[in-house]
Amino acid sequence: MALWGDANSVTGVPNAPTAAYSITLKVSLDNIPGTLARFATAVGDAGGNIAAIPGFEAKGPNVVRDIDVHCRSETHAELIASKVAALEGVTVLDWWDRTFALHEGGKIEVLPLCSVGDADDLAMAYTPGVARVCLSIREDRSLSHRYTIKKNSVAIVSDGSAVLGLGNIGAFAAMPVMEGKALLFKEFGGVDGFPICLNTQDPEEIIETITHIAPTFGGINIEDIAAPACFEIEERLKATLPIPVFHDDQHGTAIVVLAALTNALRLVDKNIGAISAVISGMGAAGVAVGKILVDAGVGEVIGVDRIGAVYTGRGQQNKIKDGFAAITNPDRKIGTLADVLVGADVFIGVSAPNLIDAANLRLMARDPIVFALANPEPEIRPEIADGIAAVMATGRSDFPNQINNVLAFPGMFRGALDVCAHSITENMKVSAAQAIAACVPETELRADFVVPSVFDRTVAPLVAKAVADAAVQDGVASGQAVKHLPG
Amino acid sequence: MALWGDANSVTGVPNAPTAAYSITLKVSLDNIPGTLARFATAVGDAGGNIAAIPGFEAKGPNVVRDIDVHCRSETHAELIASKVAALEGVTVLDWWDRTFALHEGGKIEVLPLCSVGDADDLAMAYTPGVARVCLSIREDRSLSHRYTIKKNSVAIVSDGSAVLGLGNIGAFAAMPVMEGKALLFKEFGGVDGFPICLNTQDPEEIIETITHIAPTFGGINIEDIAAPACFEIEERLKATLPIPVFHDDQHGTAIVVLAALTNALRLVDKNIGAISAVISGMGAAGVAVGKILVDAGVGEVIGVDRIGAVYTGRGQQNKIKDGFAAITNPDRKIGTLADVLVGADVFIGVSAPNLIDAANLRLMARDPIVFALANPEPEIRPEIADGIAAVMATGRSDFPNQINNVLAFPGMFRGALDVCAHSITENMKVSAAQAIAACVPETELRADFVVPSVFDRTVAPLVAKAVADAAVQDGVASGQAVKHLPG
Repeated sequence: MALWGDANSVTGVPNAPTAAYSITLKVSLDNIPGTLARFATAVGDAGGNIAAIPGFEAKGPNVVRDIDVHCRSETHAELIASKVAALEGVTVLDWWDRTFALHEGGKIEVLPLCSVGDADDLAMAYTPGVARVCLSIREDRSLSHRYTIKKNSVAIVSDGSAVLGLGNIGAFAAMPVMEGKALLFKEFGGVDGFPICLNTQDPEEIIETITHIAPTFGGINIEDIAAPACFEIEERLKATLPIPVFHDDQHGTAIVVLAALTNALRLVDKNIGAISAVISGMGAAGVAVGKILVDAGVGEVIGVDRIGAVYTGRGQQNKIKDGFAAITNPDRKIGTLADVLVGADVFIGVSAPNLIDAANLRLMARDPIVFALANPEPEIRPEIADGIAAVMATGRSDFPNQINNVLAFPGMFRGALDVCAHSITENMKVSAAQAIAACVPETELRADFVVPSVFDRTVAPLVAKAVADAAVQDGVASGQAVKHLPG
Repeated sequence: MALWGDANSVTGVPNAPTAAYSITLKVSLDNIPGTLARFATAVGDAGGNIAAIPGFEAKGPNVVRDIDVHCRSETHAELIASKVAALEGVTVLDWWDRTFALHEGGKIEVLPLCSVGDADDLAMAYTPGVARVCLSIREDRSLSHRYTIKKNSVAIVSDGSAVLGLGNIGAFAAMPVMEGKALLFKEFGGVDGFPICLNTQDPEEIIETITHIAPTFGGINIEDIAAPACFEIEERLKATLPIPVFHDDQHGTAIVVLAALTNALRLVDKNIGAISAVISGMGAAGVAVGKILVDAGVGEVIGVDRIGAVYTGRGQQNKIKDGFAAITNPDRKIGTLADVLVGADVFIGVSAPNLIDAANLRLMARDPIVFALANPEPEIRPEIADGIAAVMATGRSDFPNQINNVLAFPGMFRGALDVCAHSITENMKVSAAQAIAACVPETELRADFVVPSVFDRTVAPLVAKAVADAAVQDGVASGQAVKHLPG
């Protein structure tokens, strides 16, 4: 169905069955030896992967089971369902798309943290007792960090202008991504993230709206807002709001890149101050990656956009690139991506598919480090870099070394909220990167394991600790000293 | 402590111990007969009420227990704690304010509705699978009511300008009330309410902000915004947003008043078309109560403000009162509240404490119905109306017939969301009132039981059903016909 796109447009993997296109087949199988085998053969012959068959005990003349099958596309799913339905001894009672079923009704809910079962509960949680809490906050606004959800809540704000690799799909269509982010915030960081998708793409209106809703939240996570608006929105809000503002597409990516780079450099035994890193793509992520690399002490950072290397004095630059040029490319190197990549130690792509090839890598310095993060199709496919790159990372879950922001943002906000940080400093970001890097033990560090798994539950708490400590160091933490005990 | 107010300012009951001022005493009691009795006597002598003593088995030389005690104020709580601490055989290990403890960290959280335990989960809930859901919504925006939290979520929006009876306490201090509302939304209606407190009190900015954040939500509940701004904000948003907008202070109150009045009229055997109802207070609630009474067919409705009866042609009226005058007071009665109350069947107060007395009630028509809803101190105390009013209701939980909005708003939004209503009609409000009234069975109807208990869990589902049916009747429901099954 064109409506929902095909496998290629969403996953970039036209030939691999994936959970993203999986279905559940509710089938009745005749209880005769060989029926399940015929079912499995038919799915396999049609190119599907059986992902899960629940355990069962066959007693009656037939058995009903829900079987998950990974497919390549919606058309492929329909094909598999029809092939299975044609089998002798197999009846397809129903089948459904697992991804759409999972999103049905949304992916998060709002739940009470206290009961309202009787009049006493109501008198404390609501009127008249709640008035006491209101008045205490009126007297001392900082108590809102203690007695309201501000303590633990983050607005996940998007205008839908640059969602995943889908482009400007608008506020309504962006919601499933922002809800997914809320899911990850809670799951990994214990943070109450709430999606706010904005029906405007005007930077001034976005800034005003976020400013107006800020009293509710302890932090603002800006998400999937297109460059260059995202830069101004973040800068302006950081300057005026008394809570952390964090554009995840920029800084989440930058933090995880720095973490991966830190470990990759240990593997190839190069000193961060001596390396040259080329960044392809001067959008939100590219600019932020460049900045954090400079902050972390990388010797030479060169950004490349569609025109070529960015340097001070080059024409056709905007304010953001001017600022970027001022802190990078000290030798004002000029030329194409291929030109500046010659002799470089590190390639970091946050740009577009298939921009470089094996020949480019061969002209880099010894043991090239290649982070090709364009999604779903990277700047160079790992198969092509294999044997040339010393360390290869992508943004994808189906290759080693996935550079995934989920390693950073839950711990970043967890740490910031824990110490009531009023902003996020460069030191907090670099500390987060170091904490992520440290999650890969020295003994396990390998070319295909420079970043921890996104499912490693130890990452977020360690990031949170590092971020909180850095916030205290930097004087941006404001602990709550007021006791609620009147005695 | 002046900081948190005293009992009188919050509950209006200076002499009654209340859960709103309750404390938990963690005490170690010597295991000697008579110790608990001494404890209880000391609390009682100091004017406290022991609310709960957990069961225990005394084995060792002493027993540690958490005992809840209702107090009158914070000073009173401190007094009780000190009296108990002075007892022989009793050691106060700790004590705390139960209300503040309950609000610690906020009263709601955001929880996942699906797991992200492995790569398949992530591939469906987040990238790459989420892109399929995003694209489906881009193609057909109405699917956001199906695949996002819009299906079940309501923004509880306040600017903090008229919170409870506390006045203009601002956005930060209003948060505990809005969180409490979210609690009640979920508990009684299964609705995911999320508080949004706005750092502006400018009506244009409020309208713009709500318009911008609307894509996330399936409904907007406006709360505690002062009149007359609340009227314009609601009207403008109703005219432009494709989701229900409901100002609870107006319509929630109006619905429950109409429900209570319906049952009260059955008791006194009067026909709604033949009665005269006087409303004291022309704020948000008063105006809405008047309108719903007119819609429900009350024969004569007269509004009274500080100046006196409102009628067409009276000077010093604003746009809202002009509109109100146009549909009420057909005989253009003039005079003070006391004047127009003579011969009236119903008094409804949404104004200020102690405005009328027994003499006023004696001049009303036979079997006066008196709803004195000013909070915490009503227009006339029930003790004074006792024996004169045929039916008496207040806004308080410590008297019979509590007119509480929680009887209306959870079911109202539950019903509206269930049928994807794009607005709330007068018929939906009147239907909600009838459903609430019907929750008091004919056989149980009494002067002190004209509205169901706020803890009656059958109310919200019945209100929801009535509201949903009315929405369908009125053509404002838009069901979702699209199936998620691609086959």
